[in-house]
Amino acid sequence: MNSTVSNPKPAALYRYLPVLEWGQTYSQQTFTNDLLAGLIVAIMLVPQSMAYALLAGLPAQVGLYASIAPLVIYGLLGTSRSLAVGPVAMVSLLVAAGVAPLANGDVGQAISLSLTLALMIGIIQTGMGLLRVGFLVNFLSHPVLSAFTSAAAILIGFSQLKSLLGIKVPRFEFFYERLIYLLQHLAQTNWVTLGLGGLGILILLFFKQKVAGLWGKLGPLVIVVLGVVLVRFLSLDTAAGVQVVGQVPAGLSPLTVPSLTRESLLALLPIATAISMVGYMESVSVAKSLASKRREKIDPDQELIALGLANVGAAFTGGFPVTGGISRSVVNFAAGSRSGMASIVTAGLVVLTALFLTPLFSHLPNTMLAAIILVAVANMVDFKTAVRVWRYNKGDGVAWWVTFVAVLAVGVETGILYGVAASILLFIWRTSRPHVAVVGRVGESEIYRNVLRHEVQTWPELIAMRIDQSLYFANTKYLEDCVLGLIADRPEVKDFVLICTAVNFIDASAVETLEALQVQLADAGVTFHLAAVKGPVLDQLRQSEFWEHFDEAHLHFTTHEAMQALGNI
Amino acid sequence: MNSTVSNPKPAALYRYLPVLEWGQTYSQQTFTNDLLAGLIVAIMLVPQSMAYALLAGLPAQVGLYASIAPLVIYGLLGTSRSLAVGPVAMVSLLVAAGVAPLANGDVGQAISLSLTLALMIGIIQTGMGLLRVGFLVNFLSHPVLSAFTSAAAILIGFSQLKSLLGIKVPRFEFFYERLIYLLQHLAQTNWVTLGLGGLGILILLFFKQKVAGLWGKLGPLVIVVLGVVLVRFLSLDTAAGVQVVGQVPAGLSPLTVPSLTRESLLALLPIATAISMVGYMESVSVAKSLASKRREKIDPDQELIALGLANVGAAFTGGFPVTGGISRSVVNFAAGSRSGMASIVTAGLVVLTALFLTPLFSHLPNTMLAAIILVAVANMVDFKTAVRVWRYNKGDGVAWWVTFVAVLAVGVETGILYGVAASILLFIWRTSRPHVAVVGRVGESEIYRNVLRHEVQTWPELIAMRIDQSLYFANTKYLEDCVLGLIADRPEVKDFVLICTAVNFIDASAVETLEALQVQLADAGVTFHLAAVKGPVLDQLRQSEFWEHFDEAHLHFTTHEAMQALGNI
Repeated sequence: MNSTVSNPKPAALYRYLPVLEWGQTYSQQTFTNDLLAGLIVAIMLVPQSMAYALLAGLPAQVGLYASIAPLVIYGLLGTSRSLAVGPVAMVSLLVAAGVAPLANGDVGQAISLSLTLALMIGIIQTGMGLLRVGFLVNFLSHPVLSAFTSAAAILIGFSQLKSLLGIKVPRFEFFYERLIYLLQHLAQTNWVTLGLGGLGILILLFFKQKVAGLWGKLGPLVIVVLGVVLVRFLSLDTAAGVQVVGQVPAGLSPLTVPSLTRESLLALLPIATAISMVGYMESVSVAKSLASKRREKIDPDQELIALGLANVGAAFTGGFPVTGGISRSVVNFAAGSRSGMASIVTAGLVVLTALFLTPLFSHLPNTMLAAIILVAVANMVDFKTAVRVWRYNKGDGVAWWVTFVAVLAVGVETGILYGVAASILLFIWRTSRPHVAVVGRVGESEIYRNVLRHEVQTWPELIAMRIDQSLYFANTKYLEDCVLGLIADRPEVKDFVLICTAVNFIDASAVETLEALQVQLADAGVTFHLAAVKGPVLDQLRQSEFWEHFDEAHLHFTTHEAMQALGNI
Repeated sequence: MNSTVSNPKPAALYRYLPVLEWGQTYSQQTFTNDLLAGLIVAIMLVPQSMAYALLAGLPAQVGLYASIAPLVIYGLLGTSRSLAVGPVAMVSLLVAAGVAPLANGDVGQAISLSLTLALMIGIIQTGMGLLRVGFLVNFLSHPVLSAFTSAAAILIGFSQLKSLLGIKVPRFEFFYERLIYLLQHLAQTNWVTLGLGGLGILILLFFKQKVAGLWGKLGPLVIVVLGVVLVRFLSLDTAAGVQVVGQVPAGLSPLTVPSLTRESLLALLPIATAISMVGYMESVSVAKSLASKRREKIDPDQELIALGLANVGAAFTGGFPVTGGISRSVVNFAAGSRSGMASIVTAGLVVLTALFLTPLFSHLPNTMLAAIILVAVANMVDFKTAVRVWRYNKGDGVAWWVTFVAVLAVGVETGILYGVAASILLFIWRTSRPHVAVVGRVGESEIYRNVLRHEVQTWPELIAMRIDQSLYFANTKYLEDCVLGLIADRPEVKDFVLICTAVNFIDASAVETLEALQVQLADAGVTFHLAAVKGPVLDQLRQSEFWEHFDEAHLHFTTHEAMQALGNI
């Protein structure tokens, strides 16, 4: 099976450099497709990248810098042909959460810490890819990720209210403190700023809902241009106090070398880990879903390497942490991207923007960028999932709410940890009391069913019990309790048959329990039997000390054979 | 099923007060049995309890105090008829690890912190019992507990070397520091002390190996008496510098009230949690194994309550944390204990000891107590388990070694956490790449087997895949990768059948993945089918949004029916 899943090309070179594969057959037609897709993504990316840089607490140009080298690197190394890498809202929020408390309002320090953070994320992701331990992100279960996204969107939304209202808000540790401050200072609202931002939101919603196809993606460009024009010609910045992005340096960032002090590394490690996981999850989900539409394949480990090196690229070119964005990737795909070349085209256009268009941004009002973020994150708040998860399974529902409340109450970083812990606890709890059924024979058939649910034949000196779960450390005690409880209740019992049809593996704790159980049953005058053990499970059992004390005559191929052997049929 | 496992008496009073059950039918004959058992356990307990108190860094009499109220409380509330509660080696080591760094050599402070710790453990255990969350201790998998026990025994053993050699060793954070100090100061060995201790060990081993039956348990009593006599009449303490226990106050402890400062509570919380879990595990295992020999039952939740209240009792009567001890419980059982009355008898004898025999202990040499501990823990070091666990399963073997090395290198408290984390990671890893098999039809039968292992019939436009694991957050990505990989490799495929014979549950993450998978397959022109879904799993699937988009015509009762429906047969 594994061989059919992994990449069919055997050469490691192809695995680590997907560009070699698509590069060989690259044609003019493919380039035309990539050119169009790259252009449309660039039009979305330029305003978004600046907005997300501000969200992360960084100057606007950092967003542009993060949209060049990482895109080229991902274009060459990524296995998705449509993923659009760059700054995204959720990662930017996490950057703000990790960097702001350490930077203490010093922008230079914030930039420096963001570079360090990008390098750390790059190393973590690349390392996970090379060691092929991508499965670690599985700890982020669907309810946890959904709740985290919803809560993060709310935090992001509230963080933009100050720009939209034109109120200056000091930094607070907890989000409700900021909310209270904002409510107390609502009177300071700058109405021109609010009007401008409100207009921006309306235009964005109009484009989103009324304009069909790719033209609908022009909304952000339109409001950015509108904002610049209005501020410039009505002097809204000086006359009405509308906050603007201000002077953005022209040209590219010089080479940057992240500082690596022991102190900052330790302080940033938790958030770097969280971003590595969350960023990868967001990215690989959209990459997989787009790839499957064209029956293409994503290599999850190579994706980690490509995203990791994209972040390393960001660290050395004045950027900040990036990942694959959902909405831009969908647009890239819809616009017809055929390869990583689309990413490279986008990067080229961002370079042109940084070289020639930055003077325009000095009049760009922050409120327009806030409008872009607000509209982007509005549909990330997803209580529908909370409802359906709750309806499907109360335990998963609890994990959703634990994560959601924790992220809002104690912050993104600790909140996601609570969520992961809740998921694991839930799973252990779920499997710690597996379904067990004492079974009997249905009529004269070879079928054995739960005595509580069916009319079946049973025998007084025999208990046959089926356990519907693999046996491992979390449920061995329960198994023991069940078996010993049944035996204690029925002193006449002489044989106990454990039916293993649903047992996919038995770990070392469980095999120890089986051994103890056999001894305990023997002490009580009961013989222990196994029935219907799967091949791989049996192979492993034979390696155990339990097996040395187990009489193979007590192993039965099926439940029916066990009943026949025990002389009851 | 559950009803047959829980206690048959419906009244909550009987559940929470097992004494009501055995008290009703209590007879003179039963009392004779309990009296003998209680006496023999007391003879073991008196020297052991003082030795373990010293091990915990507390005065010897604290061990006696901890052997009175807790035993009476457990006797009345416990569901085991043979468990002998009191100070045990492993818990005492954990107490030392938690208390010593905070007490900083101040004995009064150490006593006070131990009382607080006992109360915390009492509250944690009682709370777990009342909330019925005893399953939480399942986190301590068998390999982790085995490795922890072995490493702890080594730590305990080394901690006693100083008493055996008569060398004074200052407190060190890590065990290897103490070892190095000891080796550097070997020249300071007090040869009389060592000779006395060595003689003690030889006598203990003689009793253990050569003396049959319950008389073999007299070893500790013999060497304690011998030690007292030799020190007293040869004045070894003043003449040869042999360290003795010294003045032990006569009588019982006054009522003690544990101090509850926020600071000490926070500092002790991790160790209190660890002791609550480890202590309960040790206790309930031996209780279960003894109960099963007489077909009696243990109620794990009530055990938590009984042990918890025993610890609360210790906290208010000058004791320190207790649990059920393995060796004393086995002796109690072998000596014929029939009820909690045996515990109460033991407690009575300890009271008499505390009232009348303490003057004798002032000449008791510490080296004899060290000898008792060394012999008791020697067979707790269990590399055989390490070998067999490794042989059975490499992953479980890794968990063993991680725990063992971590406990020795970073300490008992952090070490056990590493072990738990290793177990959970291992489990997630193990289930994150379940066995999957593409199956085909065996001959003209209704049996479908792995195409890689059997000669089977397959069809080009159809893939039938069996997954041998429940579907949950840790393996949904892998499932997705497998399915999409198979589809990408075989463009001619029109139908995909997921065979769920081994799926015991599907969590919210997995149901989300199924929904995404169905959409992705549809995008690729492939119809998604389910076959052989178990009843309870199907019931839950019907609650999901996935089901609203799933055509029930694509659900098949068996794999064979799926093949028939798809027109291939």
